[in-house]
Amino acid sequence: MEFTVQQIAEVLRGEVRGDHLQKVYRLAKIQEAQPGEIAFLSNLKYEPFAYTTQATALIISRDFVPKQAISASLIVVEDAYTAFSQLLEEYQKLTLNEKQGIEQPSYLAATATHGEGLYLGAFAYVGQRVRLGQHVKIYPQAYIGDNVTIGDHTVVYAGAKIYADTQIGRHCTIHAGAVIGSDGFGFAPQPDGSYRTVPQVGNVILEDFVDIGANTTIDRATMGHTVVEQGAKLDNLIQIAHNVRVGRHTVIAAQSGVSGSTELGPNCVVAGQVGIIGHLKIAEGTTIAAQSGVGKSVTKPGSTLQGSPAFEHRDSLKSYVLYRKLPELVARLEALEKMAKAQPPA
Amino acid sequence: MEFTVQQIAEVLRGEVRGDHLQKVYRLAKIQEAQPGEIAFLSNLKYEPFAYTTQATALIISRDFVPKQAISASLIVVEDAYTAFSQLLEEYQKLTLNEKQGIEQPSYLAATATHGEGLYLGAFAYVGQRVRLGQHVKIYPQAYIGDNVTIGDHTVVYAGAKIYADTQIGRHCTIHAGAVIGSDGFGFAPQPDGSYRTVPQVGNVILEDFVDIGANTTIDRATMGHTVVEQGAKLDNLIQIAHNVRVGRHTVIAAQSGVSGSTELGPNCVVAGQVGIIGHLKIAEGTTIAAQSGVGKSVTKPGSTLQGSPAFEHRDSLKSYVLYRKLPELVARLEALEKMAKAQPPA
Amino acid sequence: MEFTVQQIAEVLRGEVRGDHLQKVYRLAKIQEAQPGEIAFLSNLKYEPFAYTTQATALIISRDFVPKQAISASLIVVEDAYTAFSQLLEEYQKLTLNEKQGIEQPSYLAATATHGEGLYLGAFAYVGQRVRLGQHVKIYPQAYIGDNVTIGDHTVVYAGAKIYADTQIGRHCTIHAGAVIGSDGFGFAPQPDGSYRTVPQVGNVILEDFVDIGANTTIDRATMGHTVVEQGAKLDNLIQIAHNVRVGRHTVIAAQSGVSGSTELGPNCVVAGQVGIIGHLKIAEGTTIAAQSGVGKSVTKPGSTLQGSPAFEHRDSLKSYVLYRKLPELVARLEALEKMAKAQPPA
Repeated sequence: MEFTVQQIAEVLRGEVRGDHLQKVYRLAKIQEAQPGEIAFLSNLKYEPFAYTTQATALIISRDFVPKQAISASLIVVEDAYTAFSQLLEEYQKLTLNEKQGIEQPSYLAATATHGEGLYLGAFAYVGQRVRLGQHVKIYPQAYIGDNVTIGDHTVVYAGAKIYADTQIGRHCTIHAGAVIGSDGFGFAPQPDGSYRTVPQVGNVILEDFVDIGANTTIDRATMGHTVVEQGAKLDNLIQIAHNVRVGRHTVIAAQSGVSGSTELGPNCVVAGQVGIIGHLKIAEGTTIAAQSGVGKSVTKPGSTLQGSPAFEHRDSLKSYVLYRKLPELVARLEALEKMAKAQPPA
Repeated sequence: MEFTVQQIAEVLRGEVRGDHLQKVYRLAKIQEAQPGEIAFLSNLKYEPFAYTTQATALIISRDFVPKQAISASLIVVEDAYTAFSQLLEEYQKLTLNEKQGIEQPSYLAATATHGEGLYLGAFAYVGQRVRLGQHVKIYPQAYIGDNVTIGDHTVVYAGAKIYADTQIGRHCTIHAGAVIGSDGFGFAPQPDGSYRTVPQVGNVILEDFVDIGANTTIDRATMGHTVVEQGAKLDNLIQIAHNVRVGRHTVIAAQSGVSGSTELGPNCVVAGQVGIIGHLKIAEGTTIAAQSGVGKSVTKPGSTLQGSPAFEHRDSLKSYVLYRKLPELVARLEALEKMAKAQPPA
Repeated sequence: MEFTVQQIAEVLRGEVRGDHLQKVYRLAKIQEAQPGEIAFLSNLKYEPFAYTTQATALIISRDFVPKQAISASLIVVEDAYTAFSQLLEEYQKLTLNEKQGIEQPSYLAATATHGEGLYLGAFAYVGQRVRLGQHVKIYPQAYIGDNVTIGDHTVVYAGAKIYADTQIGRHCTIHAGAVIGSDGFGFAPQPDGSYRTVPQVGNVILEDFVDIGANTTIDRATMGHTVVEQGAKLDNLIQIAHNVRVGRHTVIAAQSGVSGSTELGPNCVVAGQVGIIGHLKIAEGTTIAAQSGVGKSVTKPGSTLQGSPAFEHRDSLKSYVLYRKLPELVARLEALEKMAKAQPPA
């Protein structure tokens, strides 16, 4: 981006104090900002940086009264934090909207259709009968298999791979390297110790406003659908197995895995490196602590679990505290044994 | 696919009851099936769905006697489950065989060779001296480095990356985003605290009938070979380090990792998120529970391990049950201490 | 490669005994070597293989006196291990330098610049205003987003994805499928239970001599920088979240994850499948055992941690040993309780 202080002030409906023709190129934190950058001051803990910052421009709240001279141009707004958040969103919109049109070479099957505002990066592949909505962005080297549908305003970043038959809603974001719709892990043991592959003929459905992190994998259903419901957010390197259902507005942190046919309810929070075994039902609003291993269904909404295998968080903490004290507890046991030995039975 | 009920009945050597000209397009579960889909009834737990299903066609076993009217066309076979499995396999074969020929642009080095029935997707790359067998399918954006060999009927999905010198057998499946043959993680510490890269000049060998999941990584050997033996099945996001050997028909679930030079015997079952340290030997038929951390070799075939560090499954469960009871055990210890205090030594 | 025994002897400043015109193509271990390969003998444990090996050539140390006839041509050097290491490095240099020039089709934006010795593989994408140093190698299907800078001698393997604004130093190696600069996982909860995406406008900086493993993901900072300092080595399938800092010469093994804003000091060693929560500071030289979960900052340099949650390694081992003995400890507790019951209070 490249804007003058004045232009930014107009977007934020703020008032400029200082040089309104200075140019800014990037957003930065007040404690790190360099010339050409714009920062903000909201938490007064950071006030000292206002007097030393090299930022070209600084957004401040109307009620902030500087105690010393500030070299940066000031943009005075009602609330500096809100104004900066707004600026962040404008910035990201601009960055996304930079990408337009069809770069060559790319592959768009004759039977594929798309709406207005398409971005198709070079080396991207769009297969037979694919339907892309309005303002869809397909970055370079992404793969969209046959029969896939993608809703309006969805972004598929570089090199993400969407297997055939996947259905993706509106306003989704699929990060680089994510794989959606690969075969579920299904193998039938044979009498000779080998395995026979169980065909995986279902698909994956991502509803609207779903975010999928980099290199996350979501397997197609054996039959039927693997579903990530509206507004769910998945971080990087997550494994979602065949026939899983992730509930509305459920959030899963990096490197967690959910095994086949498990259903996570809405508004759950799953921390990082959690494992959940197959065929469970996890109640609405469940929180699962990092590295936990969940081996049983959770029936009570709003539960918090921890441990591997996981149980109720508070109990888990108590056991863990005592685990650390085991050497001391054994010493106390030994002291009692010594006393008992010294004291012959009555 | 698009078939009439009659056509499917012929494939399955079944008998049609009802409209044999109806068309079906997809396979589905009886409890979810929609018009245009075909389902089956085997487990009588699902019998009530037979009377309400919207499926166009339903496969039933000869000995099943409906208690009510069924609207779907029926295909009567000896065993509905077996017939449906057969149909699944036919369906998957059809889907795979749809892909034929060389899409453009793709990159096929002048010194590379291939057999009949090749599919080479757009933007796929096949390097110098690569040898591809009969009926090999290389999906779009896959990378086949120099000197790689790939056996008959092997499928490499979109964007999988096969580094130079890798050898892949017949009937293997490599899913999207898998990386085969990247450098092993070898660094020699130097006196100044930095690390010097140890060259990794070995390769990876995948024998016949090996399946590799999406975004799984298998490092080349430092020298010699990293080997995945015949019929082994690896799920998504697995890490196999340099010089590891995975035995015949061993199955590894998602997000597990095996460190350098460890040898897993044949017919092992490794659950998800397991870690196995380097230079171990794991005996034939070992089962390792999810999230376990294996730090010692396993010498007894057929062992079952659990925990981090892992030990014998039954013992692990006993310790875990008592871990959960630690608060109660400490209360009992305190009661004894109180009594001991009340009772002066003899 | 293809060299005569004589040519290799000259590189290693060794002396040939036997046929100096024989050709060798590959390096191998003495116990596995085949015709056409060269191996070495240093550890005398492997001496018996010297008399049976099928290797075409064998590197031996000057002070080694064979007890039997050796069929391989010998290259006699001061120290066989050192000579072989040297050969390994020469071999890897040759392999890397094979790749030169710009393959077609590839995408190099008009505003991108590059130094001498560039390798740009087919289907690689180099975006607007990218700056590539001298001797940079970009393998097929790699993606270099807008404004990225890459220093001299850095190698980006097939299909790695570098998002816009990333800065990469000199002599770095980025393996296939790695994703650098994807959005940090930041979502603000809304009153209706949904989440609003927090724009991620920072970037990633990899300093010089950094190695990134296959399918590892490093998120851009929310604002400011996610930094991997000079000489740090990251294995495969690692997650580095937004605003993390990985210190100089810190080594992280496969499948570990570091949450947002945590700072790892220099010269740390993090084993595999470790999780570290957000906003911590980990002191210089800390070692973290495999599968540990770190939930607190580490202030003492040179600490060793284990467990989930992790604490001091030695204490962790003590607790773990007693954990395994819990059934025995409970039996002892019960014995005391029985005695106490038999003995009425005084």
